[in-house]
Amino acid sequence: MRKIAESTVRRLSLYLRFLEEFEEQGASTVSSEALATRGGTTSAQVRKDLSFFGSFGKRGLGYQVHELAGQLRDILGLTRRYRVAVIGAGKIGSALVQYRGFGQRGFDIVAIYDADPAKIGHPWNGLKVRDIENLEHDLPSLDVDLAVIATPGEAAQPMADRLVRAGIKALLNFAPVQLTVADEVILKSVNLVLELELLSYALTNR
Amino acid sequence: MRKIAESTVRRLSLYLRFLEEFEEQGASTVSSEALATRGGTTSAQVRKDLSFFGSFGKRGLGYQVHELAGQLRDILGLTRRYRVAVIGAGKIGSALVQYRGFGQRGFDIVAIYDADPAKIGHPWNGLKVRDIENLEHDLPSLDVDLAVIATPGEAAQPMADRLVRAGIKALLNFAPVQLTVADEVILKSVNLVLELELLSYALTNR
Repeated sequence: MRKIAESTVRRLSLYLRFLEEFEEQGASTVSSEALATRGGTTSAQVRKDLSFFGSFGKRGLGYQVHELAGQLRDILGLTRRYRVAVIGAGKIGSALVQYRGFGQRGFDIVAIYDADPAKIGHPWNGLKVRDIENLEHDLPSLDVDLAVIATPGEAAQPMADRLVRAGIKALLNFAPVQLTVADEVILKSVNLVLELELLSYALTNR
Repeated sequence: MRKIAESTVRRLSLYLRFLEEFEEQGASTVSSEALATRGGTTSAQVRKDLSFFGSFGKRGLGYQVHELAGQLRDILGLTRRYRVAVIGAGKIGSALVQYRGFGQRGFDIVAIYDADPAKIGHPWNGLKVRDIENLEHDLPSLDVDLAVIATPGEAAQPMADRLVRAGIKALLNFAPVQLTVADEVILKSVNLVLELELLSYALTNR
């Protein structure tokens, strides 16, 4: 399959949410115009985004809501569950572990790690904080699919290196640093300051 | 000025970080190749990104680190400070309020709001949780530049509407819903589940 832009994948995730909303409201079909309006984009964009993955919908009839939602779940890899380890039992880690949306979408947080003796062994939303020293020992039996790095900045790269060496293939980084990983490892970063800088840029250049 | 893609602005933010790192390390000049390598992009991309905003650097000599960092701060609107209100004193709000990186970058969290009587009036990292009922009354004297929405999903759109009516021009949304605001309002969203879905997509389609 050809390489699909991240912006396209992000829109597919949004379309899936909208389709689920439409389905909850009892709609059985939806037009590309309705999907576009809900997502702040154009119907041409909706059709183009979907066209990368096959032929969906019928001209003049729109899309079958239930069917397209299922197809988007297939495309996005959401027909299975994922086992997630969170590294760092700070505020971000805490927010993630307690966030119900992950489980609803198939992401099960199965372990949380920290280096702080005051945190290790303490209960965390049904989990117990694990000692980061035991990471390599634990991971094989935990069968983790992806890891979330929510450590301080200076700990993030060494932690990414350890996770990759231990066989983790996908990382989501919340630490405020740019990580470097091997090409075959999937890395996404959420940099909260950078999001605010998008706002300051837009306020300044409006 | 022509409309600049968000991806370009994101890279400018990263270049600024790298320039600050280079400066800390004592470098006075840097090549577009070095900036590109640090950011996982190409030197042609670096030059293109900067070219939107003027002429920087000299062929064969590279960029003056200190000078270019200052110019990027100008472009990104980071030569002033911003007053930020956080809506929602939950885990995400808590993570944001305690995150030192914001203040270092010029974003001062000056107020946090909640609707929960058990939280209102309690201290939060040097602030006191304010009653969301008083939002419209407080905002003029707080002189807030931008607001962060960290409420449950169902509260986010009504809250965005109230903030916009109260004159807020820029919103960063962490609630797991797609918000609709008037065109002149700047809105960025961080959807944590969507970030994980980028990973599941990449794991499925690798």
